[in-house]
Amino acid sequence: MPSEGEQKGGKRVQELANLVRSIPDFPKKGILFRDITTLLKDGDGFRKAIEVIASRYENADIDKVVCIEARGFLLGGAIAYRLGCGLVPVRKPGKLPAPTEKQTYELEYGTDTVEVHRDGIQPGEKVLVVDDLLATGGTARAAVDLVEKLGGEVISCAFLIELRGLNGRNLLDKYDVFSVINYE
Amino acid sequence: MPSEGEQKGGKRVQELANLVRSIPDFPKKGILFRDITTLLKDGDGFRKAIEVIASRYENADIDKVVCIEARGFLLGGAIAYRLGCGLVPVRKPGKLPAPTEKQTYELEYGTDTVEVHRDGIQPGEKVLVVDDLLATGGTARAAVDLVEKLGGEVISCAFLIELRGLNGRNLLDKYDVFSVINYE
Repeated sequence: MPSEGEQKGGKRVQELANLVRSIPDFPKKGILFRDITTLLKDGDGFRKAIEVIASRYENADIDKVVCIEARGFLLGGAIAYRLGCGLVPVRKPGKLPAPTEKQTYELEYGTDTVEVHRDGIQPGEKVLVVDDLLATGGTARAAVDLVEKLGGEVISCAFLIELRGLNGRNLLDKYDVFSVINYE
Repeated sequence: MPSEGEQKGGKRVQELANLVRSIPDFPKKGILFRDITTLLKDGDGFRKAIEVIASRYENADIDKVVCIEARGFLLGGAIAYRLGCGLVPVRKPGKLPAPTEKQTYELEYGTDTVEVHRDGIQPGEKVLVVDDLLATGGTARAAVDLVEKLGGEVISCAFLIELRGLNGRNLLDKYDVFSVINYE
């Protein structure tokens, strides 16, 4: 039987899940898109979602939140502010003006690349990687690889939503992974 | 003679300005790019920057922070969290899955378009528009127009950086405009 604390946590997560909107056939036919904008626009829901993630790391001495363009930016800034740590964007190629490390990863068809400023992370810094959604895990793993290329230590990867059926955790199996809302 | 409070504020802003990196000829020759990633990655600097903006609006009963893709997301999420209000992204076309309002605006050469979910703002809601940079003001004005199309009331537009010489305030002259760091 779940404890009172777990029941409260479960109720809170269910309330957050109820704020996510599911949209069929976006961005293409057959995809059920989980739209977080209906959660973000709800002041209480947004605050609770950030709290659920950030409170898990408040004693982890995180130095940097690394967040992934573009929806990861919406959460990453709030989490970094809440934790009182620095914020480092992982971006699509060509957006960052100073020298970068690049990481290419596989898509269903073809590849994609993300990059980070080389001076974004110092060796030994503790890093929390943040994105809105864990799907196949390719982008998150690329962000993790970038952090490690720069000598950072990935403490955890945190997501608002995880699509369990896509097994993104397999690509992150050496790392701690946390997601607030899970779908099969 | 400035008051002690103004002197403190001025010192704080100068400290923040010192964290911004200037990169010549990015994204193209002749542009001096103001790179905020060096400020964002500094935990104290990031926290102070969010505080300077958010504290200005803490008694303004803001319902929604509207932030502009992509760097505006990094600040907007933290400001909305700090104010305890909802967060609404203004995005490039095709990214938002539900019905949108669109706004096209002029660039130096050609036009660009941004959009927002129609259900992102309810009529009468008080809105703070947030972006990282006020340059010519085209994007910010488009965001303001979107808010008003949805019946929202634009309380203010807040920027981390303003390039005064580009006169972005002219396009926003009916609105309150606040920027933390100013360049001529």
